Amino acid sequence: MTFVTGMRIKVINPNTTASMTAMIGKCARAVAGPGVTVDAVNPRQGPAAIESHTDDALAVPGLLEEVARGEAEGYDGYVVACFGDPGLKAARELARGPVVGIAEAAMRTASYLGRGFSVVTTIARTVGHARDLTFAYGVERQCLGIHACDIPVLDLDTDPNAWTTILRTCEKALTRDHSDAIVLGCAGMADLCHDLSANLGVSVVDGVAAATTTVETLVRMRLTTGKLTEFAQPPARGLS
Amino acid sequence: MTFVTGMRIKVINPNTTASMTAMIGKCARAVAGPGVTVDAVNPRQGPAAIESHTDDALAVPGLLEEVARGEAEGYDGYVVACFGDPGLKAARELARGPVVGIAEAAMRTASYLGRGFSVVTTIARTVGHARDLTFAYGVERQCLGIHACDIPVLDLDTDPNAWTTILRTCEKALTRDHSDAIVLGCAGMADLCHDLSANLGVSVVDGVAAATTTVETLVRMRLTTGKLTEFAQPPARGLS
Amino acid sequence: MTFVTGMRIKVINPNTTASMTAMIGKCARAVAGPGVTVDAVNPRQGPAAIESHTDDALAVPGLLEEVARGEAEGYDGYVVACFGDPGLKAARELARGPVVGIAEAAMRTASYLGRGFSVVTTIARTVGHARDLTFAYGVERQCLGIHACDIPVLDLDTDPNAWTTILRTCEKALTRDHSDAIVLGCAGMADLCHDLSANLGVSVVDGVAAATTTVETLVRMRLTTGKLTEFAQPPARGLS
Amino acid sequence: MTFVTGMRIKVINPNTTASMTAMIGKCARAVAGPGVTVDAVNPRQGPAAIESHTDDALAVPGLLEEVARGEAEGYDGYVVACFGDPGLKAARELARGPVVGIAEAAMRTASYLGRGFSVVTTIARTVGHARDLTFAYGVERQCLGIHACDIPVLDLDTDPNAWTTILRTCEKALTRDHSDAIVLGCAGMADLCHDLSANLGVSVVDGVAAATTTVETLVRMRLTTGKLTEFAQPPARGLS
Amino acid sequence: MTFVTGMRIKVINPNTTASMTAMIGKCARAVAGPGVTVDAVNPRQGPAAIESHTDDALAVPGLLEEVARGEAEGYDGYVVACFGDPGLKAARELARGPVVGIAEAAMRTASYLGRGFSVVTTIARTVGHARDLTFAYGVERQCLGIHACDIPVLDLDTDPNAWTTILRTCEKALTRDHSDAIVLGCAGMADLCHDLSANLGVSVVDGVAAATTTVETLVRMRLTTGKLTEFAQPPARGLS
Amino acid sequence: MTFVTGMRIKVINPNTTASMTAMIGKCARAVAGPGVTVDAVNPRQGPAAIESHTDDALAVPGLLEEVARGEAEGYDGYVVACFGDPGLKAARELARGPVVGIAEAAMRTASYLGRGFSVVTTIARTVGHARDLTFAYGVERQCLGIHACDIPVLDLDTDPNAWTTILRTCEKALTRDHSDAIVLGCAGMADLCHDLSANLGVSVVDGVAAATTTVETLVRMRLTTGKLTEFAQPPARGLS
Repeated sequence: MTFVTGMRIKVINPNTTASMTAMIGKCARAVAGPGVTVDAVNPRQGPAAIESHTDDALAVPGLLEEVARGEAEGYDGYVVACFGDPGLKAARELARGPVVGIAEAAMRTASYLGRGFSVVTTIARTVGHARDLTFAYGVERQCLGIHACDIPVLDLDTDPNAWTTILRTCEKALTRDHSDAIVLGCAGMADLCHDLSANLGVSVVDGVAAATTTVETLVRMRLTTGKLTEFAQPPARGLS
Repeated sequence: MTFVTGMRIKVINPNTTASMTAMIGKCARAVAGPGVTVDAVNPRQGPAAIESHTDDALAVPGLLEEVARGEAEGYDGYVVACFGDPGLKAARELARGPVVGIAEAAMRTASYLGRGFSVVTTIARTVGHARDLTFAYGVERQCLGIHACDIPVLDLDTDPNAWTTILRTCEKALTRDHSDAIVLGCAGMADLCHDLSANLGVSVVDGVAAATTTVETLVRMRLTTGKLTEFAQPPARGLS
Repeated sequence: MTFVTGMRIKVINPNTTASMTAMIGKCARAVAGPGVTVDAVNPRQGPAAIESHTDDALAVPGLLEEVARGEAEGYDGYVVACFGDPGLKAARELARGPVVGIAEAAMRTASYLGRGFSVVTTIARTVGHARDLTFAYGVERQCLGIHACDIPVLDLDTDPNAWTTILRTCEKALTRDHSDAIVLGCAGMADLCHDLSANLGVSVVDGVAAATTTVETLVRMRLTTGKLTEFAQPPARGLS
Repeated sequence: MTFVTGMRIKVINPNTTASMTAMIGKCARAVAGPGVTVDAVNPRQGPAAIESHTDDALAVPGLLEEVARGEAEGYDGYVVACFGDPGLKAARELARGPVVGIAEAAMRTASYLGRGFSVVTTIARTVGHARDLTFAYGVERQCLGIHACDIPVLDLDTDPNAWTTILRTCEKALTRDHSDAIVLGCAGMADLCHDLSANLGVSVVDGVAAATTTVETLVRMRLTTGKLTEFAQPPARGLS
Repeated sequence: MTFVTGMRIKVINPNTTASMTAMIGKCARAVAGPGVTVDAVNPRQGPAAIESHTDDALAVPGLLEEVARGEAEGYDGYVVACFGDPGLKAARELARGPVVGIAEAAMRTASYLGRGFSVVTTIARTVGHARDLTFAYGVERQCLGIHACDIPVLDLDTDPNAWTTILRTCEKALTRDHSDAIVLGCAGMADLCHDLSANLGVSVVDGVAAATTTVETLVRMRLTTGKLTEFAQPPARGLS
Repeated sequence: MTFVTGMRIKVINPNTTASMTAMIGKCARAVAGPGVTVDAVNPRQGPAAIESHTDDALAVPGLLEEVARGEAEGYDGYVVACFGDPGLKAARELARGPVVGIAEAAMRTASYLGRGFSVVTTIARTVGHARDLTFAYGVERQCLGIHACDIPVLDLDTDPNAWTTILRTCEKALTRDHSDAIVLGCAGMADLCHDLSANLGVSVVDGVAAATTTVETLVRMRLTTGKLTEFAQPPARGLS
């Protein structure tokens, strides 16, 4: 097999907070294999954080624009770096190469680690959507609990109690759910992954890492979205 | 009980095809009760038809703008008049009154009519999304089949064979699925509902009618979206 | 569209307690639209309350007799006003027009109001049957809890603590289940709906109202039970 | 362990066709163990056959009367000998000993015989109810198909083509469903069981036999319905 | 019907602890009908107890050897007497007569006793596998809880607190789960069944008894594993 | 992040056919990243092919011996290279690092490629077990069909029609199932993956490649089996 030479992955943070994009890019590059270039970007316009169905919906046009631009730029695959996996199916229509969301990657990856996992996320209003995703991805039995820390996404960096609160929520989740692993329910927690794992003594799955390595290996195995019907390139339309 | 006087329902066609909006408005008004005002609108900008995940995603910001404007205008409830139910959860965050999608209304309404129903829709690439909705709404066992006519949404009016093709697809669906009713899988078919029913001899459910009467009766019963957590008004953000 | 003129709905309380029938009729009329006549009746013979599988079974012959008589009387549709939805499928065989149970109507209606609802019902021995209905109607994920108040049906009117007990049970249900709405699990609670909603600050769904408006709008949309196979008029037999 | 001496099982055919009751009793006795007395009865009043939801409902009061009488007569357990398992839960409330339906017994018994089974039943309008039972009993994945022969229950004895039609339907079912066993979907087919099995070369499960041996062994193991809540003796009421 | 004369059932304890085999044999014989011979055996080599996936896997070759030998010895059917049901499908390939596991028999038997049951088992690490079995057997809704006593299998006989601990665990399970019956989650608890039932006042299902009577009645009804495809005799191979 | 230097993955073919082991090793190495050593082995004793539940069971002790030996040899992770995923949970108890089966890896990987996939496997008697795995892994909705080619495992190399038969079966599967990708249902087909994909024009997922890259990236992300309860090192026992 000839390897894809100079594989390039575009990691798209669908919110517009540049510091978060930078952190996400760093975490993605930390796990990417030799010879894989990872570029992290965010849309020019859109919500600064994604904490509601409305945020989620308003972030998607900017995300899709980045995918469309990525196709012109020649990327081999894409990561959608928000735990709600916004716009994932639309992105799969637009891209030739694979597109992976961090929620699906984190939850499927955690399924290899035992009987079940607990999700630890930011604020309570996002728990319902995460639950929906467990059904969409067929991991509803593997997902033993979804726990909110009540820390807004944009406070993860600045709240001095954030680390302790997240650690305590993870500990509580492991005890209550009898779970084998923790899944981090927000791209903004990606940089906490290894410290949490070291403190908790169990595997902690960061979706940014999981999605980046998934795209890398899909490209390596030459696997991509089926293009026969549902995910064929959509009809081009002017937006009247 | 005091009735809501002068109830006003805003029916939003999420695509930008004005002729379709007009037809949808007519069908909604045809079933609305005495004293209920129905206004049908469409976004100023967005896709002319919704036939892909990308169309669906790009239609939502315009739809949400119409809901936000509707709140200022004082509407009592909203219909999202596209069978994919785009942006439904986000719309529920923004509106005080009830918001009902035509797919959920059509499929739940059909559940009262026997053991199961068949969906007849436009083009094959939308079948997967309709299937997802049956799971989301808990009607996966009631939905006995989803059948595409292979007629694009915007050809429903102009294709001279459209009527015959749709009728034949309904007949085939009833035979294959042993179903008790037909659900029309596109707002653009709303005006065919009664003629199809007359020809087929079974109930044909149009989601525009079903959703309009559902909103009307929810308002009448003073029932609306729970606002405690997930569907609370979302954080106001500038789109940086 | 020509409206059904002088629509007549027969609401059947399957137990034989006339005071409860009167209250149910009042609640049904309170939500019925202009021009809709609602008659509430109960069988001449049968259990005074329905609080067991045996009560449920023994109530059905009287209920079906009322449906058969209703067909002769020319009713357009029927409500089965007991939260166990007894005899619903048999009633659908006998009636030309739609037949709606208050449990299915309440639970499907509540599905429009957010992610999930809690059922508050009378006595513990009925909880299992209510749970069965959530599966039958495909709302098992939407139904986040079923809570008994331990008040027998016939004491709802006379027990001086009934109101407080029901209110406290609703509060507990909302807290434990993180639900968006309450569904009242007994026709005998129909008259408490609006006061409970006012006290709780969330939507409270009464099945009598929900089923009555559902029948009204089904008739308005000319939708009725599929009569091709399972729900065709059954073979007439003498009861040897 | 002391065996129950002189165990007595009451097999109740819920329809009023005495010749069918006699045949059912014969089939039940053929499989009952030494020392087990099997009495087969039918209600004095009720439908002559059970082929609709209405038949099913109208048969239950007579069935329950037989159970109540059986309690006075001292029976150790009961079989409900109609494939729709009518009144099963109510019968469990009334009886101290175990009550087993022929559909649940046939389908659970068939689950021991491989990956899955096909049901062969009488007329098409009963297929939906049989499907419901597979979900109620948790055998929806084991039940690979339900096939109607289009022979009414009361014609099973008199239709000269009945045997051939049933045999052909079984053969078709085995081929289409890749099933490991046939389940007979009507008590009226009980006497065909061994001949069908001999002709088909696979196990054919008759619910009358399966339910009778299940009651026998439940009694032998001293196992009976839980009486703490849902299946406690119901409140005694006059039927006002 | 001619009864199988001199029916012989082989009960295989898949672990190698002879005292446990003797107790299992005694419990099986206690419920077997007149004229049924029950022989209890264990493999010559294998784990002394089955408390992990590894134990489970290593016990299977010895179990299958006992089935193969049983075929030569002319047994009519087999019980696999370990609650994990190890090697059950392979045993079905090798045997002409029926093979029943004690977990499937216990859980299906408990399904006749009301709405749901609780499993009480030995150590926590086996709970996950028991949960998997509830899904495999379609009793995931009937199984209301699985509770570990934290007593290793081989200590059931020697731990002076075993009885009290198991009794307390059963009491806790009934209260928490609102269950109608207890299922014993280990063959090593078979001899406690009747005393537990007497103390708890509910049915307690021992899988050894349930599986033995199930095999007995399957043989009596001449029902056995389907041999057309999946469970046909496997290809004979040397183990290279 | 410091990369695991000199990562070593042990790929275990659970059957004893050395030529197949060699081919599997070659396919695994073809997708492993730079610096990853892949060793392919098979047990010394066991079935030459795995085509029945009996083969599956008898292959596991040898597989586990290879895992235990691998722990002494210092491997970082393991692939179980048979599509039935035999012994996977037991292997997870024994290994410190991750263990991945080729069925779970292939099916989860295919879940990234669209709405659903078809499995193409060897002989019909293995279809049932593959279906069970789709439920165990939560991909029962994603798996749109499982198709047997009727070619025994050991004939894949020698049957001159094997290639054509497999290709035709894949084409039929894509047409019938409307699937987005093919999953190869046997390790013995691994070397056909790219040619099939080239001929079919859709992604073809080989589990050997998918599992190898999954183990590689799990190790890279420092993720491994949860060791708190179910998958803790099992009790060491002599095999008495």
